[in-house]
Amino acid sequence: MNEATPPQTVPTAPKLPPDLPAEIGHQHVRFPEGLALDCGAVVAPLDVAYRTYGRLNATRSNAVLVCHALTGDQYLAERHPITGKPGWWEAIVGPGKPIDTDRFFVICANVLGGCMGSTGPRSPMTDSTGETRPWGTDFPSITIRDMVRAQCKLVEHFGIARLLAVVGGSMGGMQVLEWAATYPDMVHAAAPIATASYHSAQNIAFDEVGRAAIHADPDWRGGRYWEEPGLVPAKGLSVARMIAHITYLSEEALARKFGRRLRGASALTFLEDVFEVESYLRHQGSTFVRRFDANAYLTITRAMDYFDLAEEHGGDLAAAFRGTRTRFFVASFSSDWLFPTSESRALVRALNAAAANVSFVEIASDKGHDAFLLHEPEFHAALGGFLRGAAERIGV
Amino acid sequence: MNEATPPQTVPTAPKLPPDLPAEIGHQHVRFPEGLALDCGAVVAPLDVAYRTYGRLNATRSNAVLVCHALTGDQYLAERHPITGKPGWWEAIVGPGKPIDTDRFFVICANVLGGCMGSTGPRSPMTDSTGETRPWGTDFPSITIRDMVRAQCKLVEHFGIARLLAVVGGSMGGMQVLEWAATYPDMVHAAAPIATASYHSAQNIAFDEVGRAAIHADPDWRGGRYWEEPGLVPAKGLSVARMIAHITYLSEEALARKFGRRLRGASALTFLEDVFEVESYLRHQGSTFVRRFDANAYLTITRAMDYFDLAEEHGGDLAAAFRGTRTRFFVASFSSDWLFPTSESRALVRALNAAAANVSFVEIASDKGHDAFLLHEPEFHAALGGFLRGAAERIGV
Repeated sequence: MNEATPPQTVPTAPKLPPDLPAEIGHQHVRFPEGLALDCGAVVAPLDVAYRTYGRLNATRSNAVLVCHALTGDQYLAERHPITGKPGWWEAIVGPGKPIDTDRFFVICANVLGGCMGSTGPRSPMTDSTGETRPWGTDFPSITIRDMVRAQCKLVEHFGIARLLAVVGGSMGGMQVLEWAATYPDMVHAAAPIATASYHSAQNIAFDEVGRAAIHADPDWRGGRYWEEPGLVPAKGLSVARMIAHITYLSEEALARKFGRRLRGASALTFLEDVFEVESYLRHQGSTFVRRFDANAYLTITRAMDYFDLAEEHGGDLAAAFRGTRTRFFVASFSSDWLFPTSESRALVRALNAAAANVSFVEIASDKGHDAFLLHEPEFHAALGGFLRGAAERIGV
Repeated sequence: MNEATPPQTVPTAPKLPPDLPAEIGHQHVRFPEGLALDCGAVVAPLDVAYRTYGRLNATRSNAVLVCHALTGDQYLAERHPITGKPGWWEAIVGPGKPIDTDRFFVICANVLGGCMGSTGPRSPMTDSTGETRPWGTDFPSITIRDMVRAQCKLVEHFGIARLLAVVGGSMGGMQVLEWAATYPDMVHAAAPIATASYHSAQNIAFDEVGRAAIHADPDWRGGRYWEEPGLVPAKGLSVARMIAHITYLSEEALARKFGRRLRGASALTFLEDVFEVESYLRHQGSTFVRRFDANAYLTITRAMDYFDLAEEHGGDLAAAFRGTRTRFFVASFSSDWLFPTSESRALVRALNAAAANVSFVEIASDKGHDAFLLHEPEFHAALGGFLRGAAERIGV
């Protein structure tokens, strides 16, 4: 692994419970000038936490930026420092894999608003009374474009003028689209996967209920749970996670995972056990509520819900890509009902209308939205082929 | 309205808060011998609360039983005694309407396990210590078949040997199927609408999360919220209702209802407001948490989740209907993703395999699962035609 900048230690936020991830010294860059946001506010300083894999070549032309999804983070191809589990995209990223770390310099940054070292609601701020405390719910409203601007500062920090590719699934795919629209000259190739150019009313509604569940948890305390050491709105965040979990799976995947096919009382009892808050927390080893900050969940889901690339371009999605020289690879999964193929097709139509270079594949899969994270050989072959072709095009 | 039996007053459960519906004297019949349940327990006495519309003819051959859905009740064609809103099926039931009360004697009973006068978790019981208190979470586990058995006692109480028709949508449709399978000689015609012969893994999972949200509300108090006058787990029940609410609507209906098409911050703020627990409670006038008992919600959703008609017949759905002389009318709605058309088709295939008389229609609608409750002229014409035909067949 190539560590392009020396790791720095993130200052520990005051009043945080001792077992929370902010204690971990996530590798990061600090930008003291901060970042001007779409909402008009400036967040300063700005920390961008990241991991890199592979080596940046002499011409700095082999960088692939991977954008993570809602509850993902920068640990995509290594053991997670909190959960101890394998990286979330080890199926895709590594030596000889579709995103080949023998060939590419892979960068993944924790999103702005996140809770794994990048500036977000758990980061410290000094309020008008001079008190230093976590941002909490005072963290400004952010957009997908703000996330991408923060990543851009990191990319420029590496001295990279143009990314070989930007790749991501789900909310990561929204960032890919925003990268291609906002910094077209910095993106040679773009792979938005299992995503859409806007969040549907249904997806927003599910997010709203997840947020309502967090707000309804008395331990959320109006967002000030950090005032009590060790307190987190674990039940509310778990219910939010459970709702989201269902939307990530197809009927087939749910049945397979929770044994509906086996039916009868015992199968139901198992499912019940899995979805019961207490046992869900046990089942997940409490890792989600430990590794993920509830206020970050509120902030990031809201950014997803606001996302509408067409609206940013006068209601015309094609206008977002007019004149682009970026090569696009759009992929969807047949059983994904959170980001259905129809939304990828609408994106492809807009790219065609913008005369962009675009290839599209719908992968036959019964795994639902989660398929983009899982063993899907056809998808891996298609993505790997696209990236090799894009690299050869510019002699990488 | 023909009141076939004089209204009786339901005894008030002790310790219930004064504004709760159990105070209302729902018209009902009491069966002192109670009901033996699938789980082996006996619930005694058994109250079955109901409403009737139209007149029972001299040969008692014109009775149509309507089965209500999860959060429905017996007030299908009149102003609701708690909410003051129109009955939930006034589009369908009334003089000259598809279920024509000028011609048919319409019966609708509150389901076993419900909270509108039929025996359920809010009904009083005397425990082993001699204390009289609501059943609460000690109410036995019930099935859709148990609900149907309770309705059967009511039908027999009216001296009706054979129903002209049994009609219902969603969980009401599950009851229709169970009626046709359990009491084939008592059902001349059956109309299961927007339903399925089993609950899918996805539907079970959504129910599980709804139940988890109720359990996570500290005001649920392990199911003993009735110990504190006026206390109900309003936030948990609201979150459960919000989750369910999303599954009842299509993307189109959600966008129409909550203005996604209008987009931008103001639209999102509106949606947010609607789905925020506090404002949701305001928006719904708190009527749902007032009219619906959280423990009843737990009990009834569980009965839905256990439902699997094939499993009750050796894994063969056709076996549930073998030799039936009942005429079936199956209807689904194209944008219903909770009970998709594919599940109605599977039911129709089984009925065909059982050599049953069955007609099937998929109604083109963008209203989602809720379509069965709404203005859908094609559906109304088809259902009305089926019932008229079935009535003429036996000279009603």
